[in-house]
Amino acid sequence: MYNATIIIKLKKGVLNPEGRTVLRALNHLGYDGVKDAKTFKCVELTLDGDNEEEVYNKVDDMCKKLLANPVIHDYEITLKKVE
Amino acid sequence: MYNATIIIKLKKGVLNPEGRTVLRALNHLGYDGVKDAKTFKCVELTLDGDNEEEVYNKVDDMCKKLLANPVIHDYEITLKKVE
Repeated sequence: MYNATIIIKLKKGVLNPEGRTVLRALNHLGYDGVKDAKTFKCVELTLDGDNEEEVYNKVDDMCKKLLANPVIHDYEITLKKVE
Repeated sequence: MYNATIIIKLKKGVLNPEGRTVLRALNHLGYDGVKDAKTFKCVELTLDGDNEEEVYNKVDDMCKKLLANPVIHDYEITLKKVE
């Protein structure tokens, strides 16, 4: 059994309107010290498997097919073995 | 200058329909080994400040006021000093 954490970020150069909105809202609330805000998404999966490499490849496949859009997203996979 | 990463998760017991949908979609795609899927959001802020405790309190304040909903969310703040 593995826990996979997938961090899905927008690629450099892709606009992040949600982050811009957060930044503007924080500045409006008086937090002038905030210079930049970015948002990104994470998915945590629990999945069967014994071989770390196999599990990694499977999760990578899921990212390409469903979880991320390779045109605009970069993603990072972290695996942790659990009982 | 600090980089603050804020991980915003739903509290235990709060339904995560997005995660359920991801789980179902992965199972439909043939990934039967996936037993659970949870999604959560992250915000990355770049903000001025020299004193770590002060910055932490400020970010905690932002979470309470804007970034998270304390009724349904738990959040985790990680600070990293940058130049």
